[in-house]
Amino acid sequence: MSVNTFGRVFRFTTWGESHGPALGAVVDGCPPGLELDEAAIQPFLDARKPGTSKFTTQRREADEVKILSGVFEGKTTGTPISLMIENTDQRSKDYSDVALAYRPGHADYAYDAKYGFRDYRGGGRSSARETAARVAAGAVARLVIPEVTILAYVTEIGGDAIDPANFDAAQIRANPFFCPDAAAAERWAELVDKARLDGSSLGAVVECIATGVPAGWGAPLYGKLDADLAAAMMGINAVKAVEIGDGFAAARLRGEDNADPMRPGADGKPEFTANHAGGIAGGIATGQPVVVRVGFKPTSSILIPQETITREGTATQLATKGRHDPCVGIRGTPVVEAMMALVLADHKLLHRGQIG
Amino acid sequence: MSVNTFGRVFRFTTWGESHGPALGAVVDGCPPGLELDEAAIQPFLDARKPGTSKFTTQRREADEVKILSGVFEGKTTGTPISLMIENTDQRSKDYSDVALAYRPGHADYAYDAKYGFRDYRGGGRSSARETAARVAAGAVARLVIPEVTILAYVTEIGGDAIDPANFDAAQIRANPFFCPDAAAAERWAELVDKARLDGSSLGAVVECIATGVPAGWGAPLYGKLDADLAAAMMGINAVKAVEIGDGFAAARLRGEDNADPMRPGADGKPEFTANHAGGIAGGIATGQPVVVRVGFKPTSSILIPQETITREGTATQLATKGRHDPCVGIRGTPVVEAMMALVLADHKLLHRGQIG
Amino acid sequence: MSVNTFGRVFRFTTWGESHGPALGAVVDGCPPGLELDEAAIQPFLDARKPGTSKFTTQRREADEVKILSGVFEGKTTGTPISLMIENTDQRSKDYSDVALAYRPGHADYAYDAKYGFRDYRGGGRSSARETAARVAAGAVARLVIPEVTILAYVTEIGGDAIDPANFDAAQIRANPFFCPDAAAAERWAELVDKARLDGSSLGAVVECIATGVPAGWGAPLYGKLDADLAAAMMGINAVKAVEIGDGFAAARLRGEDNADPMRPGADGKPEFTANHAGGIAGGIATGQPVVVRVGFKPTSSILIPQETITREGTATQLATKGRHDPCVGIRGTPVVEAMMALVLADHKLLHRGQIG
Amino acid sequence: MSVNTFGRVFRFTTWGESHGPALGAVVDGCPPGLELDEAAIQPFLDARKPGTSKFTTQRREADEVKILSGVFEGKTTGTPISLMIENTDQRSKDYSDVALAYRPGHADYAYDAKYGFRDYRGGGRSSARETAARVAAGAVARLVIPEVTILAYVTEIGGDAIDPANFDAAQIRANPFFCPDAAAAERWAELVDKARLDGSSLGAVVECIATGVPAGWGAPLYGKLDADLAAAMMGINAVKAVEIGDGFAAARLRGEDNADPMRPGADGKPEFTANHAGGIAGGIATGQPVVVRVGFKPTSSILIPQETITREGTATQLATKGRHDPCVGIRGTPVVEAMMALVLADHKLLHRGQIG
Repeated sequence: MSVNTFGRVFRFTTWGESHGPALGAVVDGCPPGLELDEAAIQPFLDARKPGTSKFTTQRREADEVKILSGVFEGKTTGTPISLMIENTDQRSKDYSDVALAYRPGHADYAYDAKYGFRDYRGGGRSSARETAARVAAGAVARLVIPEVTILAYVTEIGGDAIDPANFDAAQIRANPFFCPDAAAAERWAELVDKARLDGSSLGAVVECIATGVPAGWGAPLYGKLDADLAAAMMGINAVKAVEIGDGFAAARLRGEDNADPMRPGADGKPEFTANHAGGIAGGIATGQPVVVRVGFKPTSSILIPQETITREGTATQLATKGRHDPCVGIRGTPVVEAMMALVLADHKLLHRGQIG
Repeated sequence: MSVNTFGRVFRFTTWGESHGPALGAVVDGCPPGLELDEAAIQPFLDARKPGTSKFTTQRREADEVKILSGVFEGKTTGTPISLMIENTDQRSKDYSDVALAYRPGHADYAYDAKYGFRDYRGGGRSSARETAARVAAGAVARLVIPEVTILAYVTEIGGDAIDPANFDAAQIRANPFFCPDAAAAERWAELVDKARLDGSSLGAVVECIATGVPAGWGAPLYGKLDADLAAAMMGINAVKAVEIGDGFAAARLRGEDNADPMRPGADGKPEFTANHAGGIAGGIATGQPVVVRVGFKPTSSILIPQETITREGTATQLATKGRHDPCVGIRGTPVVEAMMALVLADHKLLHRGQIG
Repeated sequence: MSVNTFGRVFRFTTWGESHGPALGAVVDGCPPGLELDEAAIQPFLDARKPGTSKFTTQRREADEVKILSGVFEGKTTGTPISLMIENTDQRSKDYSDVALAYRPGHADYAYDAKYGFRDYRGGGRSSARETAARVAAGAVARLVIPEVTILAYVTEIGGDAIDPANFDAAQIRANPFFCPDAAAAERWAELVDKARLDGSSLGAVVECIATGVPAGWGAPLYGKLDADLAAAMMGINAVKAVEIGDGFAAARLRGEDNADPMRPGADGKPEFTANHAGGIAGGIATGQPVVVRVGFKPTSSILIPQETITREGTATQLATKGRHDPCVGIRGTPVVEAMMALVLADHKLLHRGQIG
Repeated sequence: MSVNTFGRVFRFTTWGESHGPALGAVVDGCPPGLELDEAAIQPFLDARKPGTSKFTTQRREADEVKILSGVFEGKTTGTPISLMIENTDQRSKDYSDVALAYRPGHADYAYDAKYGFRDYRGGGRSSARETAARVAAGAVARLVIPEVTILAYVTEIGGDAIDPANFDAAQIRANPFFCPDAAAAERWAELVDKARLDGSSLGAVVECIATGVPAGWGAPLYGKLDADLAAAMMGINAVKAVEIGDGFAAARLRGEDNADPMRPGADGKPEFTANHAGGIAGGIATGQPVVVRVGFKPTSSILIPQETITREGTATQLATKGRHDPCVGIRGTPVVEAMMALVLADHKLLHRGQIG
């Protein structure tokens, strides 16, 4: 029942503060015999790393992962895998104003209300740097589910959406926005740059599809695959909304338009002629692509002064200095992929344990 | 790690099939000393009960709850509370076609793929009747959080939305739709009746607000209040979408428009001048009203024939007979309230255990 | 993290008070497809039942189990199995003295100290009647491990031990003491009868052997098979000691005398020429018989007045009236078997989930 | 449900292999505001460290702990505390024979049977080096329970017992055996030295007392304090037996001799005139000293050749070279103390979460 551990069978516990010497994850429940080394993890961290474009935060971290346990002669042993990433670029002075007043829309006040006003510096653990540990753990999770392909991309920034007709997966890594629509990527370059110069920020919508998930994963009633995905995504910094398949749009369809009819397919498995369900029915995977959509709010750390209160409770104004993302949804994309991998790996093992 | 148990400290395990003799819940972790009897639970079950209007399913169940343990001289003892509800109106013959083919959009195929083709009758446990057990457990949960008021209502059916300007809480229990807008309720009467006569079904959106939640509940990083709410709601039958606060709309705002500014308030606590966050920041309650929005897909059991396959894999058509909801979102409303209560009770105790 | 739930994969939650209407268990994690009906459970409850001989407590309960869920057409469905046993013979007046003062050696004072002096009647839940629920759950567990044979028997009562040379398994069910040594059973008849007439009580040692446990079950480092067995046994009412294999006697051997040498055996598996280890090494089953030994203290409810204090803290004397066991270890024997079954079933599924 | 995590509220996860670069623990659930630095942990590691006398293993490790997270300005933050200890003295060549055959009495065969014959080197994780991580976590646990004093000592080596009349706590740290009886310590010096020269090994019995535990800690029915202690102790390498209070000796007493009578004491709390129960009744602490006794088998790694089989299943003989303890019970003593601290800290927080 640890609140710093995620997962039921394939589990990971993260540790580390933004301004501490390092952060990391201990991955437990990874089956033995899988090939693993740092090179299997590093690319995912690089995709997430700050400082990769002028559109993301200006903090520069190497984010180099080390594997300290759980691997022998290049393969997982079945024992806990300890991953560590050192923090190399902390600038403590950037947070001096924060120590005195609460940043609106951030977790400062809530953290103080929970942990107490004198002993806790919430920014350390609530910071998005912890997601580096999640991404590293997610890379290990992918080894457990080689049959699955996971792809996440941004479909919308600041209300400006891609055109599904222009969808080209090859574009996703060809621009700084994980955008599958080249035309939208150009518009977003201007949009985000302008927001950055204005000292403002924008929200985003990220979609993630997992193909190759076999029918059967998911454990009703309180281990449902969609419920676990919802928790995993809603738990990412700045996420305020999660949909499966058609999501809220399904709420506006009639039943006969929302059904996914079946035909006989190959190998005795059904072939679905639509996917309104997003690959999950009754909490169990159907074999259709699993489709999740995640809504990120605009970054709370902005340069425009906001009305707030100090720790003593007096009124004040606060504009956050320092280095921040004008659109956290962009760097949230590899995190969404990582959480998808972590939940699916967990459910594969959970199903195997339940059914054999 | 039970997949039939929900919660971390205030936990409940449900059991029982739709066509078995009874269903129930064992509630564990309820503190001692709280006043509890059947009369504290029954009203919540009555609000959920089928057969209460022509707009919901035609199955008639008494849904009478019995408390079998955990109470002594009218107060909880701190030991497990066993709640039982007997099934009185099962009509087995209504499911004869189902035994032979898969209902599209329902969980039949997924359940068979998980549990095997010969031994499992999924409808039993996946049926919405299990939500009666959840509602009973939710009634116990409310005793733990007397400081909190929870209210859920339908904001949209089949794409027809309420007018926020007409919001009147007193209307919610005055019509069969849990609708806070009397004019919308009238429109919905026609809309749902027509869908029922067409043998079709409609989706819905339900909003739930909890006021009085103190700042501090919620346990980063993987016991976040919003993540647990997301899992709780997404796990309800037919739910495909969950939002906190502004949800997807926040993804379309600029940072300075999405912040919730603070002023000095009473008792040294801040007063928020907006609530885009929906009462949760960084996964911790802020003291603002907690706002959750849930999207229900249209009922999958409909009378219009659907293309599907039989259990042997041959093509067929299936129209489900029997008694079904033309709009499950309506009866989902008390379930949404129950899940809100269960998650909040759990978090109150979790926070107390963490912090004291 | 429920404290009323036992197990990691094959889990059960018990509920019910000694003087409430019923008690029961919800078994979760039982795989689907196993044949189960009341007749598979009842014999184990009958072996445990009070009133079966003059040597055990005089309370007469039918202890008839009902299966309320989780079974369809005679086979488990993979959903929670709710078992219920009604209480039919409660005599509330027997506990009137207890309500006023603490019985020494019993849990009364500790329960009050934990739950508070006004709202909790500990005897209800701490009573050995709850073990009926465990025995019922244990009967279901055995279905999961058909390859294992479990046998428990009493090796000692009040310091009088069996002679291993007289061991005859057929005797175990042929006398009221689960004693495998006919001569010892005769001595115990006198010993226990005398203690009963004296208003005193005796302790016992119970040994349990599980054969057919394959090498590999058990999950280091904190899911070790021996650790889980230790918790399971120490958690039984009145148990104060647990040993695996040679136990404390191993502490008095030299290393070369305590090793279990191996020879090549059939099917490529080793053949062990001794079993000091009791079937577990490094927390993992070796394929040898699993041997556990459990020490029961003498019953705390006795008729000889004891010095104690009242609930208000004043000195008093208390002799417990009512119906009690002069030797709880005897009826603890089926409970020890049940716990062995529950732990082994859990570990079989845990291992399968870990390794496949 | 991690098998590499211990605890329910105050939890720790250990990682690291004997021959990897480091080992460590992530402690989760430690309340915020407690003073913590390396100096609070190091002394406990030093007491456990190999190479401290000729009577323990000859491996020389600095065992220097680093705190990588969870502390800010000298106090715990409430976030996970990552502790790391680097391995500095590994001699891989000492295990060359082991790679080819199974050491009798060790976990080799069991580990291979569980994880597979080609990919797992069990010695890494099953080695007693992991207990360094436990001891470090135990040092943090002590901060949570300042009201409790924990003391462990060896009462017997190789069948030679201390004389309780000679008990002097000051002796415990004055000899290499944690022996509270100076005369016994002298006898043990000869005994252990002779065993070492013979290439043999001896078992031991360790007793641990915790004073200051308030009545109420412990959570029936499956979170009992004694059950958790039993699991904690039985899970230590080489432990085969656990007793609470009088243990097996209670099985040989009559009821009236085993009761702990109560008198009125100070502050309305009872004063017990005996402690056969060992401080726990019904699974809940009574306020009496908590007394646990642990039996260690003789070290399995010995220099006398043992009959065994190779990994291919052929007969062979094996004598383990390398550096090993002639009596692991000695260095197990600080580990017993650490597990006592970890269980008690967990139960203090668990009780607080349950009751407030």
